[in-house]
Amino acid sequence: MRILVPFDARDPKSRLDPLLDRPERVAFADAMLEDVLDVLSGAGHDPEVHATGPVDCGAPTTLDERELTPTVNSVLEATDDPVAVLMADLALLTEEALARLFEPTAEVVLAPGLGGGTNAIRCRHPAFRVDYHGTSYRDHLERARSCGASVATVDSFRLSCDIDRPEDLTEVLLHTDGAARAWLRDAGFELHLRNDRPTVTRPSSR
Amino acid sequence: MRILVPFDARDPKSRLDPLLDRPERVAFADAMLEDVLDVLSGAGHDPEVHATGPVDCGAPTTLDERELTPTVNSVLEATDDPVAVLMADLALLTEEALARLFEPTAEVVLAPGLGGGTNAIRCRHPAFRVDYHGTSYRDHLERARSCGASVATVDSFRLSCDIDRPEDLTEVLLHTDGAARAWLRDAGFELHLRNDRPTVTRPSSR
Repeated sequence: MRILVPFDARDPKSRLDPLLDRPERVAFADAMLEDVLDVLSGAGHDPEVHATGPVDCGAPTTLDERELTPTVNSVLEATDDPVAVLMADLALLTEEALARLFEPTAEVVLAPGLGGGTNAIRCRHPAFRVDYHGTSYRDHLERARSCGASVATVDSFRLSCDIDRPEDLTEVLLHTDGAARAWLRDAGFELHLRNDRPTVTRPSSR
Repeated sequence: MRILVPFDARDPKSRLDPLLDRPERVAFADAMLEDVLDVLSGAGHDPEVHATGPVDCGAPTTLDERELTPTVNSVLEATDDPVAVLMADLALLTEEALARLFEPTAEVVLAPGLGGGTNAIRCRHPAFRVDYHGTSYRDHLERARSCGASVATVDSFRLSCDIDRPEDLTEVLLHTDGAARAWLRDAGFELHLRNDRPTVTRPSSR
């Protein structure tokens, strides 16, 4: 099975702009990519990174300046092998969560992301193509059905959390101990209670 | 097994105040409670509602004006039976997600909520007590370990989504077809794309 990890190397994690400047966003995105690749390699896979620009990581990397959708579809068109696509910001990924993506026997397996996205796909149907715009989870369900593929959905908190909004950092600090969490801690981020709710703060801010 | 569904009947869903006035928040909270009770009953359980005030629902209801923590702990103290506690705003609950809470053989089973909360607990250890303040998921892990209980965590997107912030309504419109979704649709809420991201809007607003 081919496992793709698309990566935006141009302006990564732009929604974290209120908390992180650009070099920090690059470093944090790299750390999350490292965590995702570590889990994939640890589970015996050989992930391929498809990046919009140069990236320093431990996996073979293909440069592709196009958007996510054509990048992934060009691989789906070129191969008859099963393909899995995992987002590079799944900082909460574990081998157990990954295994659940591969459990169902359906031809298309989808892991919904918070807010309507699709955080992971496993595809072994020749006609299925992706479209990551808008409510892609719902669209992918419809696309799979309309091309006659059997479909399953993975109900995973860890696969649903893509880390791109400031409040998502709470989940990284609470539920992981990988490179992304270490990066946040080194950068001075901590959990604090505000109105009895955990919030990420940076007391020793720049 | 006793299954508790605590319910705030006084000022439900206050964080939805930007979108819903008070009578609407009451009606929407009632609809979510109905969905949760329907799944529990459908799975063959007899849920008990513990409410801070009168509530019209199809389950036996105990009035308890105290906060969530003492309410739940008084039940844990009074019984030797296994106890499960599910939040009343788990609008994405399904029988499959519920079954995963009962799968592990551990004495304490926790389902983390987004933002550090604990959305569901199944307990069959006599010394375990809850504390829902702050980062309760982490605290509950520590409490279970410190009283010598075996612990398991359920990795479920559906159990992780408690519906209390405006952006959570997106998940209800996308991933359910129960009473809560019907209420939102009847109240005029729709999904729209804003900057290519699904957002809940109410075009025919009051």
